[in-house]
Amino acid sequence: MADKKEQSFVKEIADMQADFPQWYTDVVLKTGMVDYGPVKGTMVIRPYGYAVWENIQHELDARFKATGHQNAYFPLFIPYSFLTKEAEHVEGFAPEVALVTHVGNEELPEKLVVRPTSETIIGTMYAKWIQSWRDLPVKINQWANVVRWEKTTRPFLRTSEFLWQEGHTAHRTPEEAQEETLQMLEVYREFAENVLAIPMLTGRKTDKEKFAGADATYTIEAMMLDGKSLQSGTSHNLGQNFAKAFDIKYLDKDNTLKYPYQSSWGVSTRLIGALVMAHGDQRGLALPPKVAPIQVVIVPVAMHKAGVLEKAQELTALLKGAGIRVELDDRDQSPGWKFNEWEMKGVPLRVEIGPRDIENNVCVVSRRDTFGKDTLSLDGLADEIAKLLDDVQRHMLVKATAFRDSHIVDVANVDELKAAVDSGHFARTMWCGERACEDKIKELTAASSRCMPFDQTPIGDKCVCCGKPLNGKGKLIYFAKAY
Amino acid sequence: MADKKEQSFVKEIADMQADFPQWYTDVVLKTGMVDYGPVKGTMVIRPYGYAVWENIQHELDARFKATGHQNAYFPLFIPYSFLTKEAEHVEGFAPEVALVTHVGNEELPEKLVVRPTSETIIGTMYAKWIQSWRDLPVKINQWANVVRWEKTTRPFLRTSEFLWQEGHTAHRTPEEAQEETLQMLEVYREFAENVLAIPMLTGRKTDKEKFAGADATYTIEAMMLDGKSLQSGTSHNLGQNFAKAFDIKYLDKDNTLKYPYQSSWGVSTRLIGALVMAHGDQRGLALPPKVAPIQVVIVPVAMHKAGVLEKAQELTALLKGAGIRVELDDRDQSPGWKFNEWEMKGVPLRVEIGPRDIENNVCVVSRRDTFGKDTLSLDGLADEIAKLLDDVQRHMLVKATAFRDSHIVDVANVDELKAAVDSGHFARTMWCGERACEDKIKELTAASSRCMPFDQTPIGDKCVCCGKPLNGKGKLIYFAKAY
Repeated sequence: MADKKEQSFVKEIADMQADFPQWYTDVVLKTGMVDYGPVKGTMVIRPYGYAVWENIQHELDARFKATGHQNAYFPLFIPYSFLTKEAEHVEGFAPEVALVTHVGNEELPEKLVVRPTSETIIGTMYAKWIQSWRDLPVKINQWANVVRWEKTTRPFLRTSEFLWQEGHTAHRTPEEAQEETLQMLEVYREFAENVLAIPMLTGRKTDKEKFAGADATYTIEAMMLDGKSLQSGTSHNLGQNFAKAFDIKYLDKDNTLKYPYQSSWGVSTRLIGALVMAHGDQRGLALPPKVAPIQVVIVPVAMHKAGVLEKAQELTALLKGAGIRVELDDRDQSPGWKFNEWEMKGVPLRVEIGPRDIENNVCVVSRRDTFGKDTLSLDGLADEIAKLLDDVQRHMLVKATAFRDSHIVDVANVDELKAAVDSGHFARTMWCGERACEDKIKELTAASSRCMPFDQTPIGDKCVCCGKPLNGKGKLIYFAKAY
Repeated sequence: MADKKEQSFVKEIADMQADFPQWYTDVVLKTGMVDYGPVKGTMVIRPYGYAVWENIQHELDARFKATGHQNAYFPLFIPYSFLTKEAEHVEGFAPEVALVTHVGNEELPEKLVVRPTSETIIGTMYAKWIQSWRDLPVKINQWANVVRWEKTTRPFLRTSEFLWQEGHTAHRTPEEAQEETLQMLEVYREFAENVLAIPMLTGRKTDKEKFAGADATYTIEAMMLDGKSLQSGTSHNLGQNFAKAFDIKYLDKDNTLKYPYQSSWGVSTRLIGALVMAHGDQRGLALPPKVAPIQVVIVPVAMHKAGVLEKAQELTALLKGAGIRVELDDRDQSPGWKFNEWEMKGVPLRVEIGPRDIENNVCVVSRRDTFGKDTLSLDGLADEIAKLLDDVQRHMLVKATAFRDSHIVDVANVDELKAAVDSGHFARTMWCGERACEDKIKELTAASSRCMPFDQTPIGDKCVCCGKPLNGKGKLIYFAKAY
């Protein structure tokens, strides 16, 4: 019966080759990471998903503080008039903002925007706080919920409300603002690779795709297992656009009033979706140890036999004492059923211990990433487990990087570009930089993601679209289908 | 000139004896804890205030997890119809909820409530998740922002939007729900006393004052320095009210469908206001070491002299290495100016070090709580500082407890009750338990806070209001003016 249950258990997840979107939905719902909220497009982040977010927050917050940022909290509600002060910004956000018009039965004098992002309200406060060059730089981050009404939604990937962090800084010089913009992109890349075990393509977005109100937007792009690109974080150089719109002025050393230069940058609960689609497989989730809510699960075998449960409890306490996030599964179900459940939940390591193992002073450790099994001595187990967790973490990045690198192809014309992205690849090519070509590519192909990498070493001398010679002025660019 | 600046610096804070509300406002604004948001009644929590909140979160979150709770996140928006499902709940909250009616230019089919609290949306999800007795207990906590439109607002104490945590649990038996309700009140009390250094009066609220939709509400009440009471946290036994309203049913061991018993409990950014008004003085804030963003500030004296700055930097690194939150103030201002600033900001310990101190291998340490000064050897300094911080923490609770205890008076009639609360005291007395007397006391006095302590040893045999004999059925109760 355990086997039958096991079968049906695994069958509950759609075939990832045949229907990747359904596979994703099955995985995030059935692992208890998330549920649909009652209002269309909203999500409930359940404890197992939220614990991943807490680990992400913990890792990122330490990095923000180490780079000199402080946290603060700005109001959820923004007067509608603020949104309209920066022309591109209002154009970008007005159609998708939720509006508060009433309190109880009373109509408000001015409708309020539920923040889709906080540049405007933070700009208003910075205008008050920044008076002198001594007040600069200002480097503030906020952990908050934001609301952007989306037509098509999917848990974590695109929801009407999501959780994120948004950094907002102000600097004396344009060089400092650009340095900050790129520094935070680099913080994101390093975090994504070393904590999420997801390699990132880093670069600049096209002007068409930049943040509404920015001078330039930089992005980290991750390849999902279906070959599509997931924009995982962005960092914007805002120039003086918001400073001028919100009248942020400071008295500089030379006794003249100047506008500071600003940056903003953010990542969101979308990263949880990236984890699912970068590492998962037919059995469900596979979580990198650094963000896994449970790093090791201990499953006693023949639990009713004398001494088994006691030994399992002892090992649990041992690993907990070593700072490992460990859970003992002493429920009534069969070991097979438990193996399936914890594999589906993506726990990096499983420790099995039964009467024979205890006799031999060993246990069996299984890896979620390779399905490799090893018999380990109980002597020095905590150290060995810690090493194995490091190895899983390292190997998951290697594996994801190999997958990504084997799914990038160079293309020389639009047909090749279309074929590449349709077959689940990133297409690397040269582009003349003209908006007309960018629009035409979007029209003719499903390539909705564009990223110009920092290393601009050319791989050709003609535009992939118009075919015109570039004379060294072209852009190296990646196209992909976007999430 | 430094002296003059120093003078004006201190004068910026209103006299706390003459105008306590203005003193409070001056302190929270001028220390950079908070600012007014652009929408009436909202606040911006600035880095210095937010860092206090982060320390509060860190301490509480560890306690919630240690008592078996998990964090999750539920949506901000609640369909209006949900609010109306629990009759008392909608009556309590409907007048003060912010309503989202539009997205962009489009009207929504149903107006959405911006959560004032999450019982209703969580109830809806629990109805989905709780199917069997095996699913119980459910013990979830959420850190979130909530919105309640208030007519009269003050930063931290009462704002249209605030940050809080809300725990929501479901249990098989009424006993378990009651145990949880009281356990979390005890977690709050222990936290408030040991971390915030604020003694709490714990007890039950009257039926009139309980949470809209609860069977019983328990409260922790703190005395502020003006003798008023600040409700600092509440824990509610919800009985089966929300389970019935939201149709949460589970199949019990006996194969029948039953409603679970629930609790909910919360504390908010209001606690920051409690810290200010329980410990502050004419010089500004005084923060207990466990929540102080900066525990020790190092001020070099005669900083231009050779070796002074280097020694100050060395001490800073030393204390940081010992896990102490330390800041070196190496700005250009005079030591006197700096002393004032850090006293105003409530930093528990100040270390001064100048050329003569260095010669003698000592430094001067000043306490914010007692203004005591001590000369300490630089040998073993980190240990001594850690001990001093413990002592400041301990002493602040002793001091606040002595103040509180000396401002409680027993009263036997309404005139005495009125006189007591008007002169900044908690009035302790006996009450018959009738709503008529409760209403009359509110009408005749400014006593808006009521708390019935757990220890109900009677102190009299007649009701303070109607004078009727109680025959052992009266309630021991504290009255006070409420924040």
